Amino acid sequence: MARQMRSVRTRARILQAAAEQFTRLGYEATSVDEICSAAGVSKGAFYHHFPSKQTLFLALLQNWVQDLESRLESIRQEVEWVPQRLMRLAETLREVFEQAAGQAPLFLEFWYQATKDSTAWSVSVQPYQRFRSIFAEWVEEGIQQGSLKPIDANLAAATLVSLGVGLVLQVALERKGLDWGQIPLRAVSLLLEGMSSSEFM
Amino acid sequence: MARQMRSVRTRARILQAAAEQFTRLGYEATSVDEICSAAGVSKGAFYHHFPSKQTLFLALLQNWVQDLESRLESIRQEVEWVPQRLMRLAETLREVFEQAAGQAPLFLEFWYQATKDSTAWSVSVQPYQRFRSIFAEWVEEGIQQGSLKPIDANLAAATLVSLGVGLVLQVALERKGLDWGQIPLRAVSLLLEGMSSSEFM
Repeated sequence: MARQMRSVRTRARILQAAAEQFTRLGYEATSVDEICSAAGVSKGAFYHHFPSKQTLFLALLQNWVQDLESRLESIRQEVEWVPQRLMRLAETLREVFEQAAGQAPLFLEFWYQATKDSTAWSVSVQPYQRFRSIFAEWVEEGIQQGSLKPIDANLAAATLVSLGVGLVLQVALERKGLDWGQIPLRAVSLLLEGMSSSEFM
Repeated sequence: MARQMRSVRTRARILQAAAEQFTRLGYEATSVDEICSAAGVSKGAFYHHFPSKQTLFLALLQNWVQDLESRLESIRQEVEWVPQRLMRLAETLREVFEQAAGQAPLFLEFWYQATKDSTAWSVSVQPYQRFRSIFAEWVEEGIQQGSLKPIDANLAAATLVSLGVGLVLQVALERKGLDWGQIPLRAVSLLLEGMSSSEFM
């Protein structure tokens, strides 16, 4: 049992160290040796958890996506009224953005690798399709409960995902300038004004 | 004069060939030799126009930005009513997206280089700040002419740019799926419903 916990902790330490190194140096320039030394683990321990640097990279991405999916699921369970749910989501995105601000190179690395490698592509692009169908369900639900206008759910979902992705990309790229902390929340509320049934806003 | 025209054509041929090679192979993997042979020009001619591969890469990006800026400027001159102007912009974006669909790696390359290199950063990130101030002016104009609600112009501009960037990124990454052709137009119109004075929609 203690051994299993140690193994979980080792894996987490490797992931954490890799995220930092990839962010700082880029994926190509980061070696397994550097990750091991930053994480304080042996190469044997590394390869026990991850057969390759790419597997590790994809695991980082999958963690990020799973984290976002479980946030979405708890928001869905907690907030029934869809416009309020989307506002709650925007608050959550704010945290995601605060993390993203320091991780510009890592996000771009995910997307960049996706254009070169079909495994990276399926791991980093399919989630958007998944997020789109989650949002489309939410929008359908909002239309049924009367909180949203009878809009095209797939279109509204694609718009939400594009806005989210665009916000992440811009926060990731911009080093200074706007106070991005306020923007997600207010951008979603701007979009919501067009989507909501006026009597329920 | 004939010589000058030949020089302009040579430069354009190099840019075109480079865009194709970068898209196909990525920036790092593309050599000046390959660009020269794809463009059918000598290395001497290449270096006459571009001191380095990076200069060429930044010229490609600058062309793209200038093209978008002059589209924005002619739309501004042609369409006075701001909601209509934004719809016209969305139609224009549709063309931009059709090009973008085949150039996924090149767009990602721009953004990726921007995280690593401050020259690439200033060339690829500053345009978003510029686009934001153009849109903020448009929104102010719309508020003054009574076509838009008295919303926060900087916020609305940041939302428009994020939506645009997110749409480009998603179109660039997705290989199939949604009919993206319709989406920009309808996404902007969804956003406009929230921004417009109801009496003028």
